[in-house]
Amino acid sequence: MSEPYLECVGCGHDYSMSVVNTRCRMCDEPLEVKFDLGSVPRNWFQTQRAGFFGRRYAPFYSYLKANPALCLGEGQTSLLRSVFATQKVALKELFFKNETQNPTWTFKDRGTACSVQNAFGLGYKRLGTLSSGNMGASVAAYGSRAGMATFIMLKDNVPREKIEALAIYGAKAFKVYGDYRQLYQKLLEIAKDHHIYFSLSDDPLRVEGYKSLAFELFEQMEGRLPDYFVVPLGSGGLCRGILKGFEELRDTGIIAETPKFIGVQAEGNSPTVDAFEKGRDRIEQFQNSLTLDHVLENPYPPSGNQVLRKLRTNNGILLKVNNEAILDAMLLMSREGIFAQPASATSLAGLIQAVKRKLIPADSRVVVVVTGSGLKYPPVLKEFNFLPVSVELDQLPQALAATMQ
Amino acid sequence: MSEPYLECVGCGHDYSMSVVNTRCRMCDEPLEVKFDLGSVPRNWFQTQRAGFFGRRYAPFYSYLKANPALCLGEGQTSLLRSVFATQKVALKELFFKNETQNPTWTFKDRGTACSVQNAFGLGYKRLGTLSSGNMGASVAAYGSRAGMATFIMLKDNVPREKIEALAIYGAKAFKVYGDYRQLYQKLLEIAKDHHIYFSLSDDPLRVEGYKSLAFELFEQMEGRLPDYFVVPLGSGGLCRGILKGFEELRDTGIIAETPKFIGVQAEGNSPTVDAFEKGRDRIEQFQNSLTLDHVLENPYPPSGNQVLRKLRTNNGILLKVNNEAILDAMLLMSREGIFAQPASATSLAGLIQAVKRKLIPADSRVVVVVTGSGLKYPPVLKEFNFLPVSVELDQLPQALAATMQ
Repeated sequence: MSEPYLECVGCGHDYSMSVVNTRCRMCDEPLEVKFDLGSVPRNWFQTQRAGFFGRRYAPFYSYLKANPALCLGEGQTSLLRSVFATQKVALKELFFKNETQNPTWTFKDRGTACSVQNAFGLGYKRLGTLSSGNMGASVAAYGSRAGMATFIMLKDNVPREKIEALAIYGAKAFKVYGDYRQLYQKLLEIAKDHHIYFSLSDDPLRVEGYKSLAFELFEQMEGRLPDYFVVPLGSGGLCRGILKGFEELRDTGIIAETPKFIGVQAEGNSPTVDAFEKGRDRIEQFQNSLTLDHVLENPYPPSGNQVLRKLRTNNGILLKVNNEAILDAMLLMSREGIFAQPASATSLAGLIQAVKRKLIPADSRVVVVVTGSGLKYPPVLKEFNFLPVSVELDQLPQALAATMQ
Repeated sequence: MSEPYLECVGCGHDYSMSVVNTRCRMCDEPLEVKFDLGSVPRNWFQTQRAGFFGRRYAPFYSYLKANPALCLGEGQTSLLRSVFATQKVALKELFFKNETQNPTWTFKDRGTACSVQNAFGLGYKRLGTLSSGNMGASVAAYGSRAGMATFIMLKDNVPREKIEALAIYGAKAFKVYGDYRQLYQKLLEIAKDHHIYFSLSDDPLRVEGYKSLAFELFEQMEGRLPDYFVVPLGSGGLCRGILKGFEELRDTGIIAETPKFIGVQAEGNSPTVDAFEKGRDRIEQFQNSLTLDHVLENPYPPSGNQVLRKLRTNNGILLKVNNEAILDAMLLMSREGIFAQPASATSLAGLIQAVKRKLIPADSRVVVVVTGSGLKYPPVLKEFNFLPVSVELDQLPQALAATMQ
């Protein structure tokens, strides 16, 4: 045989490859593709790369004695070239780095992977974090895998769905009523008393995990780095980590300069952007924080001051967007095939604003980090009022035809 | 510098790497890792592999003229060696292939990627499917990315969350009241009238997509294939696809024989297993199908007869499990760091039963496919009655200590 064809799995009858939407006309069984296996080289495979710490960027983690059994397959996420958004955002080149493909479906896993290696190496048997949900799920997953007792502290407004989705891993969840900033301080005391390793947003090892995003991007873009790199700003750890990665590439002479960064916050919680706009060196605690999915809701980001310093040196841009712009960006990304949580769409919303305000040139090459899956907090989908067409089977052809007019 | 250390990002004060849970004691800013960049080779990177159809197994898709712009980064999912389950399941070696890392967080994306390439190549401008939710989301995502009008037909009991999570991509959703089997037939007529490419479960190109799982597994296990491969059985397309992949490896002389397959259904919908147990050649429509997350609920699986034939030739095993066993398996996998939907945990539940009943030897090497993310249908988590500890900040230390006793 030389031409590919379709063959019935039941009676073996042949069909052309151009036949679609059909089962076998002889016996009503499914068809399958047949083609010439002679074209397959016998040596098409080769040894597969190892996990996170066995990848090509492993030299940037040489100080860690990594135990691969603690990994969950973090990193190696897709970089997608935008199909439609390039027109709609009016940019020369736009890419999405899809961090929703991590083991707990957010970028947090890169950081947790490094934190847990460190905690394990130092002999800790207890792991903890303070989270609005995503980091909690990540720490719960890695903690369980490492056989550690795991404790997740949550703000009092964290919804039930998010708590259940981290409790399943076996972590103990605490819903704490009180001031977020004081809670952060309290945890550092508790850590000492109970010998718990808290993988908080500014754990230096967590930030180390995030730097792998820079290395992967460099590989995936084959050395041609973007002009701008857009990140949502929560605690600030992600921005710090990626920038550190680019700086290490620069400091080893692999690249000449780092991309510029655009950091974006939601209007419902914008302490870092506000300090930047006011020309301040230090952030102030934000009052009455409220964001669409509670993800970017830290009112006093632990790495906020450092982000201010770094983005000034970087000639970076800091801006904030409203909920309408975030929901619009969610829809725009979904049309590309990427269903992101509102916190992630915040970065695209910021980029759109930056282009409109001509803060960046239209011929820029831009990468937007998509930080987490849209499945993380489905209640937000109610905002769109999606409704299916409900129809009896015999009315389906007419109902379908009606939507095509 | 030679030894790694921590440095304050604010004032530059140095700390030992063994210091954890601490910000700078001088200025209360975060710390970051410093290490000798001289150890990084200048040429650590190299050109990155391309997408799905540009990978090392591309020769097995030589008959498709693939357009990389239609891909969403499907495949290349993690293979994780079980840490605890090996003891608890009492098996020599157990691995999980984590398909929740696909772009819409289920294995469906591999199949949709191939269907869409085919539809696009044949000039179709309309795409459709019949789904209980997961396949709908996948087709919606790839359809939007390809710029096609996309139509998703759903059973009348599909919950609102699942409809919203596919409507976000821009697909038109139809909730159809009527018999599932008749609906399937109706769609083949509609397809002709409206020139819609229906990427149904037995679309030969969809099955082609699933075969990539066999190739990846072969790469990841460095040629040492498992004795058994465990899959949940819905429509049967996944089982057919993976087995076809192994058969192609065998027929090209790359492997000597295919692994044996264990196909698992839930007691709430077990048409294929029932036909197998009764020694029948053809499946019968299951009455009153009901499964925990509605995923494995097709009462008349389009590839059911072919799965029966194939698994008999393969010396495979077909069995069914109850809801309690599925929920137990969900918890067991979560302790490994993998939060799967009930449909996915069905396969581990089946494996546990197979070991207990001594249907397979205890020294077997086994791979379980984890088909989809636990985030796909959160309402099922209510079954576990997870509750957080609710506590005022100043009571946290006592509450925490209480959970440690």
